[in-house]
Amino acid sequence: MPHSDILAAAGLTQAELTGGSLTVTTPVDGSEIARLKTHSTAEAEAQIAAAKNAFKSWRLVPAPRRGELVRLLGEELRREKENLGRLVTLECGKIYQEGLGEVQEMIDICDFAVGLSRQLYGLTIASERPGHAMRESWHPMGTCGIITAFNFPVAPWCWNAALALVCGDPVIWKPSEKTPLTALAVQKICERAMAAFGEDAPEGLIQVLIGERDLGETLTASKDVAIISATGSVPMGKAVAADMSKRLGRTILELGGNNAMIVAPSADLEMALRAIVFSAVGTAGQRCTSLRRLIVHEDIYDALIPRLIKAYEGLPIGDPLADGTLVGPLIDLAALDAMTSALERAKAEGGTVHGGARALADTFADAAYVHPAIAEMPAQTEIMHTETFAPILYVVKYSDLDQAIEMQNEVPQGLSSCIFSTDVRETEYFLSAAGSDCGIANVNIGPSGAEIGGAFGGEKETGGGRESGSDAWKGYMRRQTNTVNYSRELPLAQGIKFDI
Amino acid sequence: MPHSDILAAAGLTQAELTGGSLTVTTPVDGSEIARLKTHSTAEAEAQIAAAKNAFKSWRLVPAPRRGELVRLLGEELRREKENLGRLVTLECGKIYQEGLGEVQEMIDICDFAVGLSRQLYGLTIASERPGHAMRESWHPMGTCGIITAFNFPVAPWCWNAALALVCGDPVIWKPSEKTPLTALAVQKICERAMAAFGEDAPEGLIQVLIGERDLGETLTASKDVAIISATGSVPMGKAVAADMSKRLGRTILELGGNNAMIVAPSADLEMALRAIVFSAVGTAGQRCTSLRRLIVHEDIYDALIPRLIKAYEGLPIGDPLADGTLVGPLIDLAALDAMTSALERAKAEGGTVHGGARALADTFADAAYVHPAIAEMPAQTEIMHTETFAPILYVVKYSDLDQAIEMQNEVPQGLSSCIFSTDVRETEYFLSAAGSDCGIANVNIGPSGAEIGGAFGGEKETGGGRESGSDAWKGYMRRQTNTVNYSRELPLAQGIKFDI
Amino acid sequence: MPHSDILAAAGLTQAELTGGSLTVTTPVDGSEIARLKTHSTAEAEAQIAAAKNAFKSWRLVPAPRRGELVRLLGEELRREKENLGRLVTLECGKIYQEGLGEVQEMIDICDFAVGLSRQLYGLTIASERPGHAMRESWHPMGTCGIITAFNFPVAPWCWNAALALVCGDPVIWKPSEKTPLTALAVQKICERAMAAFGEDAPEGLIQVLIGERDLGETLTASKDVAIISATGSVPMGKAVAADMSKRLGRTILELGGNNAMIVAPSADLEMALRAIVFSAVGTAGQRCTSLRRLIVHEDIYDALIPRLIKAYEGLPIGDPLADGTLVGPLIDLAALDAMTSALERAKAEGGTVHGGARALADTFADAAYVHPAIAEMPAQTEIMHTETFAPILYVVKYSDLDQAIEMQNEVPQGLSSCIFSTDVRETEYFLSAAGSDCGIANVNIGPSGAEIGGAFGGEKETGGGRESGSDAWKGYMRRQTNTVNYSRELPLAQGIKFDI
Amino acid sequence: MPHSDILAAAGLTQAELTGGSLTVTTPVDGSEIARLKTHSTAEAEAQIAAAKNAFKSWRLVPAPRRGELVRLLGEELRREKENLGRLVTLECGKIYQEGLGEVQEMIDICDFAVGLSRQLYGLTIASERPGHAMRESWHPMGTCGIITAFNFPVAPWCWNAALALVCGDPVIWKPSEKTPLTALAVQKICERAMAAFGEDAPEGLIQVLIGERDLGETLTASKDVAIISATGSVPMGKAVAADMSKRLGRTILELGGNNAMIVAPSADLEMALRAIVFSAVGTAGQRCTSLRRLIVHEDIYDALIPRLIKAYEGLPIGDPLADGTLVGPLIDLAALDAMTSALERAKAEGGTVHGGARALADTFADAAYVHPAIAEMPAQTEIMHTETFAPILYVVKYSDLDQAIEMQNEVPQGLSSCIFSTDVRETEYFLSAAGSDCGIANVNIGPSGAEIGGAFGGEKETGGGRESGSDAWKGYMRRQTNTVNYSRELPLAQGIKFDI
Repeated sequence: MPHSDILAAAGLTQAELTGGSLTVTTPVDGSEIARLKTHSTAEAEAQIAAAKNAFKSWRLVPAPRRGELVRLLGEELRREKENLGRLVTLECGKIYQEGLGEVQEMIDICDFAVGLSRQLYGLTIASERPGHAMRESWHPMGTCGIITAFNFPVAPWCWNAALALVCGDPVIWKPSEKTPLTALAVQKICERAMAAFGEDAPEGLIQVLIGERDLGETLTASKDVAIISATGSVPMGKAVAADMSKRLGRTILELGGNNAMIVAPSADLEMALRAIVFSAVGTAGQRCTSLRRLIVHEDIYDALIPRLIKAYEGLPIGDPLADGTLVGPLIDLAALDAMTSALERAKAEGGTVHGGARALADTFADAAYVHPAIAEMPAQTEIMHTETFAPILYVVKYSDLDQAIEMQNEVPQGLSSCIFSTDVRETEYFLSAAGSDCGIANVNIGPSGAEIGGAFGGEKETGGGRESGSDAWKGYMRRQTNTVNYSRELPLAQGIKFDI
Repeated sequence: MPHSDILAAAGLTQAELTGGSLTVTTPVDGSEIARLKTHSTAEAEAQIAAAKNAFKSWRLVPAPRRGELVRLLGEELRREKENLGRLVTLECGKIYQEGLGEVQEMIDICDFAVGLSRQLYGLTIASERPGHAMRESWHPMGTCGIITAFNFPVAPWCWNAALALVCGDPVIWKPSEKTPLTALAVQKICERAMAAFGEDAPEGLIQVLIGERDLGETLTASKDVAIISATGSVPMGKAVAADMSKRLGRTILELGGNNAMIVAPSADLEMALRAIVFSAVGTAGQRCTSLRRLIVHEDIYDALIPRLIKAYEGLPIGDPLADGTLVGPLIDLAALDAMTSALERAKAEGGTVHGGARALADTFADAAYVHPAIAEMPAQTEIMHTETFAPILYVVKYSDLDQAIEMQNEVPQGLSSCIFSTDVRETEYFLSAAGSDCGIANVNIGPSGAEIGGAFGGEKETGGGRESGSDAWKGYMRRQTNTVNYSRELPLAQGIKFDI
Repeated sequence: MPHSDILAAAGLTQAELTGGSLTVTTPVDGSEIARLKTHSTAEAEAQIAAAKNAFKSWRLVPAPRRGELVRLLGEELRREKENLGRLVTLECGKIYQEGLGEVQEMIDICDFAVGLSRQLYGLTIASERPGHAMRESWHPMGTCGIITAFNFPVAPWCWNAALALVCGDPVIWKPSEKTPLTALAVQKICERAMAAFGEDAPEGLIQVLIGERDLGETLTASKDVAIISATGSVPMGKAVAADMSKRLGRTILELGGNNAMIVAPSADLEMALRAIVFSAVGTAGQRCTSLRRLIVHEDIYDALIPRLIKAYEGLPIGDPLADGTLVGPLIDLAALDAMTSALERAKAEGGTVHGGARALADTFADAAYVHPAIAEMPAQTEIMHTETFAPILYVVKYSDLDQAIEMQNEVPQGLSSCIFSTDVRETEYFLSAAGSDCGIANVNIGPSGAEIGGAFGGEKETGGGRESGSDAWKGYMRRQTNTVNYSRELPLAQGIKFDI
Repeated sequence: MPHSDILAAAGLTQAELTGGSLTVTTPVDGSEIARLKTHSTAEAEAQIAAAKNAFKSWRLVPAPRRGELVRLLGEELRREKENLGRLVTLECGKIYQEGLGEVQEMIDICDFAVGLSRQLYGLTIASERPGHAMRESWHPMGTCGIITAFNFPVAPWCWNAALALVCGDPVIWKPSEKTPLTALAVQKICERAMAAFGEDAPEGLIQVLIGERDLGETLTASKDVAIISATGSVPMGKAVAADMSKRLGRTILELGGNNAMIVAPSADLEMALRAIVFSAVGTAGQRCTSLRRLIVHEDIYDALIPRLIKAYEGLPIGDPLADGTLVGPLIDLAALDAMTSALERAKAEGGTVHGGARALADTFADAAYVHPAIAEMPAQTEIMHTETFAPILYVVKYSDLDQAIEMQNEVPQGLSSCIFSTDVRETEYFLSAAGSDCGIANVNIGPSGAEIGGAFGGEKETGGGRESGSDAWKGYMRRQTNTVNYSRELPLAQGIKFDI
């Protein structure tokens, strides 16, 4: 399908795609696909004001009714799954299967949020005083600014927005300047859902800001943006946190990952192999949950690594829209440079690199296709402590599980992790307080590909935020502890006597 | 009881109380009661290292066993309730009844934490993939630094420490430099509990740092202090948040309050009167939950305010250790100055001030006794947006509940609030999404005096942290989302196909 | 719309509607609308066997996938809302607005259940033993037999079925022999949803049994029916409970209600009036949550009751399918007789009866239209302790709230209750341990019309079961407590020593 | 220690121990240790009336205050641990270590219940209607009758009573007629706790009924006993359930177990061996969670079973009060007969029996000491489907895990189960919907020895009740769903229109 057809199928008009200052290129072939108008700071502030106003009424719409909007959004997304999935592929370069998967994740979170809309459970709590009722309620918090990254252009918005909307919060989306088109396409889908929903959805409830970093800063600076949920790099996250600390605003941060897999002697190597390839090479190694470090027991190293190298050699690289492709392009040539220099550093630190060369340069001179790389390292060296957004898999040996876990935990990031082992004593240990220090820890599946039912996020430089399932919705609401005295006495807590 | 007897009864020895550089005076009469040795930065770092080491073993002690330590701590506190309560009064000046109440709060949270130690519930979650189990566990987080303020010298430490210990985290306490003696006395109590507990309690599990602000900064700077729980002023909280944003560390902030009561026409005025006096005048107006703003319906203003002024006039002011005293001293003469200048400003803004003069200056030349003040204000003026740690109660009229709530919510702080009304339509509205924006909202009791069963804290400049009951314990643990594949297949989430 | 069109629009064919032995009449005019074939005991047993078989695979279908079936069911119900709502009206006689409301409730529970399908939360629990993980999981339970009553012919099935299906349990429905047609129509809707869902839905997953009481007994007798959820009369419930006690099977019982409203002096009488009429007269007084007893404070009795009598006089009685009708027919002439004799007894016990006469007898000789009745009683007499399924509202006076609550609680049933009062001290007291003993207790709304987000059911003779929202889903699953020892030691709980 | 000293140390006086009609013998040597007075039906009814009265005030005592009584009870139990543990051993024959363990379990549940007393969490729930608040509260239920069995004479009472008391329910205890002395001793401990607690504890709050089955029937017959929690045999449970079905009362049933262990090829056989012996032989095989069926993979059968038989041969049998004894007596000679005849049947069904002979008959002619028996069975025969309260371990082989699980689940009981395997695919499968159908399923620990933090109980003929941890407390309270309309409108749920 020609690129222009993909854009049109996603509902984007020529008028929208032209005449602006923000050039959007597709990583598929490096060609320009749009020149978008960007929002000014004043427009961003106007959006904030509109959202503030929307909040006044939206917070009073009963949550199950708010859920109905999200249900309609899910229905629209079901309808547009292929169109939007294809646009995701075009704009960020992940293969179409993954583009579809990302939209499916949006649909899943909508379903989940609809159920939540009749819950949003607080607690009733036993009070120590006679004639007193204690409880806690969760109330809407205010506008939620959502900052997303190019590698997951749509799903993280939806993880945040579906919950925020059900929780009573308007949303303003600042997508990556590399992937604004999917944001515009989603905004159109939202508008259809709002139209179907009717007048309870106020002006300014769902908005999108197209442009550069300064728009994000407008959001973090405004006390009328109660929450900033930001997905991206650690430096970006620290900047957001610093800005928000000035006004004690709330953040939900999903930052870097440097995710490892431990492969134990008892592992099913066939399964491990498949899991490694998908999680290291999927999205061309540009997931925050991509597998970056492989910690293999010395006894099985030789049974696994040569097969892995062989599997890498056979991976179909190419147009992510084409059937059969498993490895699409990196986002841009700068990413290719970063990958190249990381591999250089790996070599300098004693590593042996397999793969890693540019691919298809003849066909796609302006696109960044690469052969995924495996770097066999003598130990967990310096470069392995950093996250390079590219398909580089560092491999090291271990001899003892505690040592493997120590390596796993040694890096500053704390997002995802996994172990391949069939020994329950190892797998449970890995999941225990003595095991992985990541927010996600899996057994016999790779570090990527979380379901929306669980809370997503991690500690340390990953930023501490949680999105998606479990009680992540609490991040979008304020908790209020209530004590109601329905007696005609006024007893004090802790038995204090104070008689005037 | 002479001050020296109080110190001795709390277990503090002359060797400890003398020879150092930190002068401790009692607000009771302004006299010096100790010169304490302070910790150096190097000693603080050594404590951090010791705690890090303690964490390695403490996190593996089963939580119910950790709960046993907290149970023993509660038993020791029961035994020392009077001795410690008296020392609280001596060191921070609150009346003895409140000193006892503070220790009772420590005991209550210990009981609660013991129960928690067999809970610390995560979730098992339905997975979308066959042969997969999903769940989330909560694990110990690491060392918790606890920074506390003079006005509640011991209870907030215990809210944090009882939970942190049960959650598997060592604690390092940096008390206010104005109230280090109670911290030392509590540390002794902890040591007795640890001795009774036995060797499972590692060196460095519970520590205290005596000194100035730089010690707090050592805590915030160290990546080995996973959590900082800080109680105090908004500027302090912002400084902590900024420091922690540099390393994306976790904070639990309990900062300023500017707490209001709305008195509606249907209120039981007798009850309201008592509640107002206790919550505005208790702890000499130096609680973070002290009542500072009274928003009275115009129809009952004249029925309430003159009686209130009269009640204020009759309040017994004096030695907080003496029976019958209801108003003890401010913490120091600087607090008196701050109060005086706030009252000046209130007058300048059109207010009529009742009370507010210094009291007992002849008897206690070096102590800061005052007559609690009522300032009748023409509207919610500028001074009313700030928190002055003193017994000043600003009073304004309202005519319509929405207007009253708007006033209530207009200030930057968001800790506590309440309404006196017997009309359920008003009280529920006040507790709804359209009502108070505070973390605590009460009906027919004052804003202060929370039970430990509820979560304590608030939004906006109050800092967003939650301590004490409900699921506040989650602030001391890290959440881990686990997916265990026990099948022999490797399905991907969201139905993605990726076959190598 | 002619009756035959209603039947056809609901998808029922002439072949289905004729030739059987079970005569179905419509309460609208008493005419016969179908002669249905009934199932034999052998067929019932075959259904049980098919469900048992379906369970084997359905329990292994991941819950979120099971949720997808329920989502599709919800979509089908949205599509058929009017058709099914009209059939509900035709078959049970409730007005069309209520018919629609009943289908909406089915839709709501489907939405809720879809969200649940990614939850079904068990707990992970802190273990007292090192190297041990404790948790609890919820697993599918087995076949759920659902017995429903004529007055809510479809919604209670869906409360049960939507949850049961998501929880992994096949369902077999035994509807009232008075309302089998709606059951058949719903079964067709289910079949469409299953067809859309695909092959994961096994044969025998959703079944319906048409016939008399003996079919219900076949269900209660079979150990292959893990759960019986029965809605109906107290004697029916006791019979089910007795049968199930023989095999220690699980029951969910929703039996009689004898629901009261207390109207306090501070009540908004305008609202109370509307609430009384809807809840006493809606569904012609044949809801299990219908208002049956009105306990009015003596000070407002004269302000309320004459107006109520007047409002009753103006109620439009007639064809429930017609616009504007508020009072449709009773289910049959036997119900009319029961109403008449109850009113006779009320008079004999000192009551003054307003209304209660048969209506529209000329137009509808075979249908049981009545004028809703108000019986002013001298006290809470014997007849008021029983539930008559008809629009009779007994009214008594009270002078003191405790006395009113005592009257409210005096009856053997414990389903629903409410208070109209604007005094928060009264309303909270009514909701406290000292207040209503019912499973449902409302403030300023009537006893009927529960939302699906809350648990529905009550104690005492109401049977103790809970359906619909909150954690009612646990009634459809079995709880399993797991302890996993991943250490290489074998410590015993409670510190027991046992060394072989 | 002489028996009389044990009785005296537990606080039982000669006056209490003599002069009655209920002969109590010790299984230690079969000698008579008391002749107790029994309660008449009239006295039972008086206790029920007293409890009903106690309920009126106890339900209004704030739950944290009720928790204080349970905390004091825990303190008393700590003090009396050895004295009570010894009496447990004397009266029911379990070894002293297990007697202590039982008291420790009482202490643990008290600690847990104290924590619960500030929770008893209900939910606040999002309402679909504007201006409505929905929530659910848990209220005290009424008197809880507790029927216990001889094999755990005290802990199950405390599991129930500690929760019931915190939940606001008075308790009446009907202990086994074989172990009334421990009940009397516990009652004395309770009375001390109540005395320390003060006057908030009403008369009739904690009571004990000494006598035979008819007293239990008095409890089940009375509508003033809201809950019956019964531990014992399946026939007893069915009788209770049938009685309670007549009045639709609530039951918590903990009935028979027929607990299995699957030993997989990958199991740590050393650990398995120890676990088998403790769980099959502990309490002389008279735990409801005793291991009764061992399902061993054919590949390791010969490595395990001979060692097991050998271990059995070396077990020290004798006076349970003596140091080093691991196998005490059966409760009485009737139990010995039952064991003997079960073993006969096992042989008749093809089994080979090791051990099983009477022991120490010369020393203890009136006591029922036995050699624990292992019966190697050709298949899971008929006798293996029944529970014999004696140390008989049936052993069968399996070749395939699904077959093993099928055997495990084939029996009518559903209490406890476990697997020994180090393969996580097996262990998780065993814990999944496809695995064990028991309420308790463990990995690498035996079926007995649950911690109090988890819910205890099982499905099928085990009766479905849950006690102890998790949310088992809900069994002692009634749930109330509340909707509060604080608006001035009266919207109906499900969007129904009904305008009068």
